[in-house]
Amino acid sequence: MIFFTEQDIDRLIEDDAPLGDLTSFSMGITGKQGAISLRARHEMVACCTEEAARVYARAGLSVLNCTPSGVKVAEGALLLEAQGDAMAIHTAWKAGSVLVEFASGIATRTRFLFDAARSVNPQTTLAGTRKHPPYLKKVAMKALMAGGGVPHRTGLSDTILIFREHLIFVGGMGNINQIILNLKQCQKEKKIVAEAHTTEEAVALAKAGADAIQVDKMSPRDFANCVRTCKSLSPEIKMLAAGGINPGNAREYAQGGADVLVSSWMYFAPPADITVEIRASE
Amino acid sequence: MIFFTEQDIDRLIEDDAPLGDLTSFSMGITGKQGAISLRARHEMVACCTEEAARVYARAGLSVLNCTPSGVKVAEGALLLEAQGDAMAIHTAWKAGSVLVEFASGIATRTRFLFDAARSVNPQTTLAGTRKHPPYLKKVAMKALMAGGGVPHRTGLSDTILIFREHLIFVGGMGNINQIILNLKQCQKEKKIVAEAHTTEEAVALAKAGADAIQVDKMSPRDFANCVRTCKSLSPEIKMLAAGGINPGNAREYAQGGADVLVSSWMYFAPPADITVEIRASE
Amino acid sequence: MIFFTEQDIDRLIEDDAPLGDLTSFSMGITGKQGAISLRARHEMVACCTEEAARVYARAGLSVLNCTPSGVKVAEGALLLEAQGDAMAIHTAWKAGSVLVEFASGIATRTRFLFDAARSVNPQTTLAGTRKHPPYLKKVAMKALMAGGGVPHRTGLSDTILIFREHLIFVGGMGNINQIILNLKQCQKEKKIVAEAHTTEEAVALAKAGADAIQVDKMSPRDFANCVRTCKSLSPEIKMLAAGGINPGNAREYAQGGADVLVSSWMYFAPPADITVEIRASE
Amino acid sequence: MIFFTEQDIDRLIEDDAPLGDLTSFSMGITGKQGAISLRARHEMVACCTEEAARVYARAGLSVLNCTPSGVKVAEGALLLEAQGDAMAIHTAWKAGSVLVEFASGIATRTRFLFDAARSVNPQTTLAGTRKHPPYLKKVAMKALMAGGGVPHRTGLSDTILIFREHLIFVGGMGNINQIILNLKQCQKEKKIVAEAHTTEEAVALAKAGADAIQVDKMSPRDFANCVRTCKSLSPEIKMLAAGGINPGNAREYAQGGADVLVSSWMYFAPPADITVEIRASE
Amino acid sequence: MIFFTEQDIDRLIEDDAPLGDLTSFSMGITGKQGAISLRARHEMVACCTEEAARVYARAGLSVLNCTPSGVKVAEGALLLEAQGDAMAIHTAWKAGSVLVEFASGIATRTRFLFDAARSVNPQTTLAGTRKHPPYLKKVAMKALMAGGGVPHRTGLSDTILIFREHLIFVGGMGNINQIILNLKQCQKEKKIVAEAHTTEEAVALAKAGADAIQVDKMSPRDFANCVRTCKSLSPEIKMLAAGGINPGNAREYAQGGADVLVSSWMYFAPPADITVEIRASE
Amino acid sequence: MIFFTEQDIDRLIEDDAPLGDLTSFSMGITGKQGAISLRARHEMVACCTEEAARVYARAGLSVLNCTPSGVKVAEGALLLEAQGDAMAIHTAWKAGSVLVEFASGIATRTRFLFDAARSVNPQTTLAGTRKHPPYLKKVAMKALMAGGGVPHRTGLSDTILIFREHLIFVGGMGNINQIILNLKQCQKEKKIVAEAHTTEEAVALAKAGADAIQVDKMSPRDFANCVRTCKSLSPEIKMLAAGGINPGNAREYAQGGADVLVSSWMYFAPPADITVEIRASE
Repeated sequence: MIFFTEQDIDRLIEDDAPLGDLTSFSMGITGKQGAISLRARHEMVACCTEEAARVYARAGLSVLNCTPSGVKVAEGALLLEAQGDAMAIHTAWKAGSVLVEFASGIATRTRFLFDAARSVNPQTTLAGTRKHPPYLKKVAMKALMAGGGVPHRTGLSDTILIFREHLIFVGGMGNINQIILNLKQCQKEKKIVAEAHTTEEAVALAKAGADAIQVDKMSPRDFANCVRTCKSLSPEIKMLAAGGINPGNAREYAQGGADVLVSSWMYFAPPADITVEIRASE
Repeated sequence: MIFFTEQDIDRLIEDDAPLGDLTSFSMGITGKQGAISLRARHEMVACCTEEAARVYARAGLSVLNCTPSGVKVAEGALLLEAQGDAMAIHTAWKAGSVLVEFASGIATRTRFLFDAARSVNPQTTLAGTRKHPPYLKKVAMKALMAGGGVPHRTGLSDTILIFREHLIFVGGMGNINQIILNLKQCQKEKKIVAEAHTTEEAVALAKAGADAIQVDKMSPRDFANCVRTCKSLSPEIKMLAAGGINPGNAREYAQGGADVLVSSWMYFAPPADITVEIRASE
Repeated sequence: MIFFTEQDIDRLIEDDAPLGDLTSFSMGITGKQGAISLRARHEMVACCTEEAARVYARAGLSVLNCTPSGVKVAEGALLLEAQGDAMAIHTAWKAGSVLVEFASGIATRTRFLFDAARSVNPQTTLAGTRKHPPYLKKVAMKALMAGGGVPHRTGLSDTILIFREHLIFVGGMGNINQIILNLKQCQKEKKIVAEAHTTEEAVALAKAGADAIQVDKMSPRDFANCVRTCKSLSPEIKMLAAGGINPGNAREYAQGGADVLVSSWMYFAPPADITVEIRASE
Repeated sequence: MIFFTEQDIDRLIEDDAPLGDLTSFSMGITGKQGAISLRARHEMVACCTEEAARVYARAGLSVLNCTPSGVKVAEGALLLEAQGDAMAIHTAWKAGSVLVEFASGIATRTRFLFDAARSVNPQTTLAGTRKHPPYLKKVAMKALMAGGGVPHRTGLSDTILIFREHLIFVGGMGNINQIILNLKQCQKEKKIVAEAHTTEEAVALAKAGADAIQVDKMSPRDFANCVRTCKSLSPEIKMLAAGGINPGNAREYAQGGADVLVSSWMYFAPPADITVEIRASE
Repeated sequence: MIFFTEQDIDRLIEDDAPLGDLTSFSMGITGKQGAISLRARHEMVACCTEEAARVYARAGLSVLNCTPSGVKVAEGALLLEAQGDAMAIHTAWKAGSVLVEFASGIATRTRFLFDAARSVNPQTTLAGTRKHPPYLKKVAMKALMAGGGVPHRTGLSDTILIFREHLIFVGGMGNINQIILNLKQCQKEKKIVAEAHTTEEAVALAKAGADAIQVDKMSPRDFANCVRTCKSLSPEIKMLAAGGINPGNAREYAQGGADVLVSSWMYFAPPADITVEIRASE
Repeated sequence: MIFFTEQDIDRLIEDDAPLGDLTSFSMGITGKQGAISLRARHEMVACCTEEAARVYARAGLSVLNCTPSGVKVAEGALLLEAQGDAMAIHTAWKAGSVLVEFASGIATRTRFLFDAARSVNPQTTLAGTRKHPPYLKKVAMKALMAGGGVPHRTGLSDTILIFREHLIFVGGMGNINQIILNLKQCQKEKKIVAEAHTTEEAVALAKAGADAIQVDKMSPRDFANCVRTCKSLSPEIKMLAAGGINPGNAREYAQGGADVLVSSWMYFAPPADITVEIRASE
């Protein structure tokens, strides 16, 4: 349950129609009643329909139907339906539909990537990075989770993830044993995750006691070897494949023993295709 | 000159690192000095480098170099460089780099589409719609303009654009002459733009006095015919091609006489690929 | 339909009563019930009654009656009525009534100026500038439109309006043909509006192809001549009278052929006079 | 020293130019340098020049001169001067100048009313009410104080001011002795101010121990009598004249013994008239 | 009636659960119904229960019971009860309960201090300073008032309070007669309150005409003497005891004639102890 | 490095002095220069001095000295020093000093509790809960970390922490093996932390594979036994003592084998005592 504030909802309308729909106003569309419905143009995982419903309600419309986020719907399925004043429909229309299209696009891609990985390894999970479009953490995370993924990390403040760029300030990989020892002493409620670019680095990290290793941009074949080596050193260690994960290689990494696929590929999905129908009420 | 407020800049850091980089803190990376540089991994149109520079400055870093938005750079080119406290570098790193990657991805795609159209028709312009990712109007518009495009409309409140969905509340296409007459009487400083889905509709609109017709989802061939017909009726009319415009068909629409290509394709570009290098200062 | 966010509504109460009505609190006015009604003290065009109703509702009152914005009411007419807790009435009273008084003052003045112009020229429209009091775009625009006006431009980002101050950076009036040619090539969905201070400038702009000319601070007589000259050169051109437009000269400009009167006079209206009655419920 | 936040400053630009000056952008005014200067077109009390200077600085300009708020300047005097990028000048121009015009209009009117009252009674002060345009407390209060006034009350939470509308919930004027006794017991650091509409009410309030009486909409002659009566009963009591105070009657109220004139007349001043000159730098 | 905006309410949830309760999400607690109730673990003055109710309602729960702020409840008393979706309960739980605990802690301490003072002097009032935790004015003031206190001042902009630190810029204590004379002339609707650190200073202030003297950090015995001396000079003067007021000395200051105890002790109360029970609905 | 936005800084001034220091204004303290210095009245751990320095700078002062957060200073030590306009000093004074007092109070208490635990067990860490005063996450976390603590969790969205209240919706403690198995499958980058109220529960959790057990409100003696039992079952498990942790019992829990003390005791510290000296410059 990702929480969108009133301000989050209001901004969608305000960004698109700060002074209303000038066309409707100039045409004198007022006092007319109508209805708006959003339908899926293709199979998709619905997302942010609840927020679009709030957008329509905030503009004064009555929401009649709303398919919950996370539901996979067939072509033609009704996603959202509302009715009320025609000028309100025009004012809020795209503020709502563009959000659903964007979020459902991400959710659908997430589900696709997730299913690909799971088809070969029922243990693999799919984690979405923090490299989503700027300002869009809530939408991206809601869509990720609606599609079957989990947040990799929500930002810098909630997990321990050692980059090579950290090490250069504290003695480098040569000092990794002490570094991880210190981190474990300081952060007892967190797993120590560290990034490796080579099997050699991964082995060093595994020996130093890392709880999980995020292997960056290694070929699926090398990754599989790296997993085997590290798990033989540390059976409980979690092995994460990151860097360029996409549907073309997800199965291979999953088969190679990836506990987690770490990806931002889904965030840049094209919007889902949605048909909007607006009708006048008699 | 799109204006990013202090709050726009601050939110980028706050979203990613509300309580700082827990890893740097836990490692005791403090009092160390370093530098960060962002370089293009491929030819690209730089964008939002100024805002990333402000992100780094707000975190306390000194900005040394910054390639302006809109500049096309070669692989390897330096985009941004800053130096200062190592913990500040880690805190602000991705808040800055993810923005540049995202915006440069859009700018680069825009330039690509723009160049495609212009290669066959030096009069065609490229307009970006308001169907960008939600909450991202400023970033999307800055990238669009950096790439050679112009805003189609910034929202509902600044232009007259008649959709079929407006007409259903005021008498439909059969009433179009009166509707456009009224609009011209009411909004004398605006062009009257109207959407058509068929040549028949376009002709009706042209006869009714529309200043521009946005033809939605017509094949390039039909569009070219539609343009010829409409321009013969109304030589000054502007013909806009919209709906599914992309590099695969942009040339055809441009050759068919499109005054404007109206597209949202560029907004969903994959992020530009940027190398970040962080170094310790001795 | 200008959209006021929840924050817009909340701020009205918070600005006036950040910690409530200290007098009511200190008197122990609590648990009492009452009603508040707002009535017009003179004929006026009501405005922002919907927002005042939201203010009262946010404070916990029940709204019983609300005359819509844009309605011209007679002296004594009920504008808004609400009931509930006496302390809530005192807390929200002026946050609501001051808004209605301010906005109705502008709407009433707009209607007055509009009617003056229309009485002599049924084609003339009235456009309100962006020179409203700072921070008040929504209120000013809502009142303008409630009074029969239209926005001239909502800001710098939505229209093309060439000032003399632009020209000094691109070659001056001597270069106007090329400048307008370029603008038309770049902004095909916008009219090219330009400001002129003399008939000579207006003629140059008309010849260069401007779609509309905003004539600044010319006498009504000179303006009428200027209109004739320009329309003879370019029959479709729109002629705007701007600079010091007020009820004393509006008819003259309208008679002189003004397509549009561009004014900010209405924004500085004295507030409409409203009687507030508060009653205790038995 | 009224404090304008960074957000207060940023919003002025963002409201007027959310996506920059489309005209400058479309004309390609870029890389040019210029200067902007604001001069008084008539004698005036300058106000909010500091905030306009911050607006220009935020847009990237260098501020060269700034006349402080509260200074009375002659026709032609320089109020503000800045220089820098031509596109930045166009983007920030009116965001700054409209603020100065609006605030200086109020400050100038305040000074005028203040001087009128002081010319006949050197003890009279001028207090500005909270009935300023909505959302504009800071600007209105800064201008009021720049013009020689003081805030009457900043809102409901900082003073005790008994209205008739309070009394109806706690026993009415017949219970005033007990009410004021209670208030004095509860709020020992505040003066007890109460509103009267007749001399009879004023006398009752004076006898009950009110520290100050705000006499609403009484004729200057009746007010003078009321002052004499009340001061004979309670020599230390402060007598405030409120309701329709303006330059036409301010002297009379002041001569009649008003300790304070309470007014909102100044807030609805027309903007001060300012000449803006923009020059290109060679 | 202190007004909490929608944003105030939303931030409580957003601060605690920006992306929801990860544990509930990961466990798949969804579609389950439950109820949450908050009960007092000890006698306390309830506070901010209304705001916690709004928190629960914003998360989608139905509020069943809510004890109003300011009510003194016994151990075991129900403070708040809501029901609905189990994931919503987990998301909003502590955002609501932590607020009630914090505010009730302050309200309870305020009542305790207030009762102590009143037990020996029924005229003494208790004023809470502006030295509450930063950012918490609304919560602190609501709790203060719920506990029987009044705001001393809400900030710097609403009262006249002369500190020694003011005097050093305008001639010091030697100039106090003129300073107070000037202040009385300028601010006729305000009492002139001044801080004294010694009886000598207090006497000087009383002679100069101060309306109230805030005596800082004087022993109760010296304070009693100071009160007698000042009241003999100026019978109407109000004497405030400030600096280190707490339950250990409040009775002494009250007995010594304090009209007002000025304290910030209550703001740093430990949170009230509240039992939260969450139940599944069948 | 916890990031305070410009808005965070601005709000401190705006909350305390929305319209400036009325006393300074009314006294005419203007054009005078002065200096302000903050000194520790007792040994303390400084905190939020950087933010107070920004407050003073935003008001226009020049900051001369600033002791960094986290430094333990002796009685009399200079914490912060700034100079400039006397009215700016008065406007910003307490907005800065109250923040430092509040944050340093928490930091000092944190250090005290931390030192107590470490004196008997050099492995024990101190984690601060999310039960800090509402709205104060940044200040509380900065102070916690300045005092030697670490965040327990920053909210609900960053860690897995199983409460009894979760279990009632998914089968209860009897189902704990399956629940933890599922959680480990879903959240591979997180430790699974669970709350226990009895040794029996702790044992069940340890057997089920929890990575850490937060034992709530158990006596130090029972806790020590519980630690031994659980560590014998799962040597790597982390044992957290929570509920009523304070300096009176911290040593016992630490000696009893607590890996982490989880506390909110420090957040309700009385403010640190700081002397503020304001001087006029000659």
